[in-house]
Amino acid sequence: MEKDKLIQYVSKIKCLDSEAAAKAGARLNELAKPPGSLGKLEEIAEKLAGISGEMYYDTAKRCVIVMASDNGVYEEGVAATPQSVTYSQTINCVRGLTGIAVIAKQFNADVIVVDVGVNADIDHPLIKNRKIRKSTWNIAKGAAMTYEEAIKAVLSGIETAIEAAGDGYKLLGAGEMGIANTTTSAAVLSALTGIPAEKTAGKGAGLKEEAYKHKIEVIKKAIENNKPNPDDPIDVLAKVGGFDIAAMTGLFLGGAYMRVPVVIDGFISMVAALTASRISPVAKDFMFASHESYEQGFAHAAKALGIETHLNLNMRLGEGSGCPIMFAVIDAACAMMRNMGTFKQAEIDNDYIEELKTGDNFSVN
Amino acid sequence: MEKDKLIQYVSKIKCLDSEAAAKAGARLNELAKPPGSLGKLEEIAEKLAGISGEMYYDTAKRCVIVMASDNGVYEEGVAATPQSVTYSQTINCVRGLTGIAVIAKQFNADVIVVDVGVNADIDHPLIKNRKIRKSTWNIAKGAAMTYEEAIKAVLSGIETAIEAAGDGYKLLGAGEMGIANTTTSAAVLSALTGIPAEKTAGKGAGLKEEAYKHKIEVIKKAIENNKPNPDDPIDVLAKVGGFDIAAMTGLFLGGAYMRVPVVIDGFISMVAALTASRISPVAKDFMFASHESYEQGFAHAAKALGIETHLNLNMRLGEGSGCPIMFAVIDAACAMMRNMGTFKQAEIDNDYIEELKTGDNFSVN
Repeated sequence: MEKDKLIQYVSKIKCLDSEAAAKAGARLNELAKPPGSLGKLEEIAEKLAGISGEMYYDTAKRCVIVMASDNGVYEEGVAATPQSVTYSQTINCVRGLTGIAVIAKQFNADVIVVDVGVNADIDHPLIKNRKIRKSTWNIAKGAAMTYEEAIKAVLSGIETAIEAAGDGYKLLGAGEMGIANTTTSAAVLSALTGIPAEKTAGKGAGLKEEAYKHKIEVIKKAIENNKPNPDDPIDVLAKVGGFDIAAMTGLFLGGAYMRVPVVIDGFISMVAALTASRISPVAKDFMFASHESYEQGFAHAAKALGIETHLNLNMRLGEGSGCPIMFAVIDAACAMMRNMGTFKQAEIDNDYIEELKTGDNFSVN
Repeated sequence: MEKDKLIQYVSKIKCLDSEAAAKAGARLNELAKPPGSLGKLEEIAEKLAGISGEMYYDTAKRCVIVMASDNGVYEEGVAATPQSVTYSQTINCVRGLTGIAVIAKQFNADVIVVDVGVNADIDHPLIKNRKIRKSTWNIAKGAAMTYEEAIKAVLSGIETAIEAAGDGYKLLGAGEMGIANTTTSAAVLSALTGIPAEKTAGKGAGLKEEAYKHKIEVIKKAIENNKPNPDDPIDVLAKVGGFDIAAMTGLFLGGAYMRVPVVIDGFISMVAALTASRISPVAKDFMFASHESYEQGFAHAAKALGIETHLNLNMRLGEGSGCPIMFAVIDAACAMMRNMGTFKQAEIDNDYIEELKTGDNFSVN
């Protein structure tokens, strides 16, 4: 049974290794700097040790996983972009043309594109086929998917994360491609937290005021009609979510299961992270937030999850585009941990003064 | 005359190239993404075009310049760290042991260490000697330096930036090493803006409450005794500043003069940037702020300068340690500009569908 499989994965997610984290904390205090002066870089290094059990974490092999799917609620006119863009940008992602493709490449990150429900036949050697079916149904008219499909979509994310970890990826990012998915994400966020749609819905890729008001109404209707159970995150995903959000929820769970950190991108990614934390509260300890998305609902989702961002770039592209920049911040934390001198090493002793005089053996950055 | 030299440099700082910036803006709107959805990355790309006149700016060669100096106000007991640490960390920087050395290396940035006033004899092949003299005087008892020395220190920064640009560096960061320089920076900020010391002074590398109160009193006394003229930034630097801040002020001016962007680090760097903008308001257009420093006065300095940060890492190490992380953000902006597909390229045309069928010619990230 798929549900049993999900329960098994979730039940195996363990807490952070507090001993490894404490050792990392002790080393941080030995480094030649005022204690705590590297702020969140120190927190990141400590958390990475807790996740991996390793003092010196190696983030060289990393990837952003892009979950692509269409959303039936598109037909309500909630998106500023044609639905076919999900398909074309999914393809363009592996052609290297999209924002995430370009930014990932800049930061030496691979991009893994997974079709979980694009509304077109895709048979592309570089796109993983984990299709649940073509597009969800329209949440304004009924559930997005069946309960079983929601579980299947979450499992597809978990298994994608497991595969990636098996392939040696030490750092994952959770991205998406799916026209109308800010609507479904806002619906999931409202359903999980009770925050009204006026606050969870944003203007997505550029809605006009009229269309934005309509989007809010659609979300309200979807929740009223479907009555998702806030205590059952799978029910919420099934009734008002999407295959993309559900699969991303699985990514966060799968990362935690494999003890590999997963970086959150923007609004949809943050809602998926929140959903994952409702399925397994421990999963949160394996997540890193990247940037403060410009999409209105983001801050509410981040607050509900209780996680802090590191970048303030007013970005709202999605696709996972903020993840690689956060990989760079994590790189800085790892470099600090691995390469900074300790107070002991930082003492300018007589040997070094002698070296200076002879001019030998200088190291420079 | 040194003053004439300074005036000449400053008078040659020209405005951004608005035509190049507009062209960059036009291209940004052709890229396959909702307009503006890459937020500050788009602003950065446009500003870089305005600075350099180039649509595709190449940031591969970059450096952080660390201005090292001692500050006479140390003797008032305003610092949590022994004065000798300025000397040892200056040396450790070129040994690759300090925070900035490690973080710069991670982001392929060089570190250029300049001695403008360390209170020790330094004869090191990797440290540039632009020493004004050993340490400033104690601002609680009189001026930190003469007016002529202040000009000389600013010029040393300008000339260091000119040299770096001449050596092919396309992106500079302004860092420092100087025990007690959060005290002098707070004094400069208070003198320039009228904001009281209670708001401009922070706890630096870890002052206890008692010592912190004393630090505030020292800053107040320095301003009362010296009466720096807020309309003459050189007078402010001379009376309550330091060689480090003055030289960093010069870096920002020199970057603008050479039309090379300069990245601001933390509190001291931000105060120097503000001071530079008081000498040449145009210089601000050549600056990028990096992170929101944890040091209390930072936000006031950033607000006075009118510049937004990109990273929120609670860092307060100084040394320039935030600059290389901002270099990575700028890299992302440049990669977006250079490599993202346009709407035209992003159309999935029949040729590509044919390629798909034959399985030829796939590009992957």
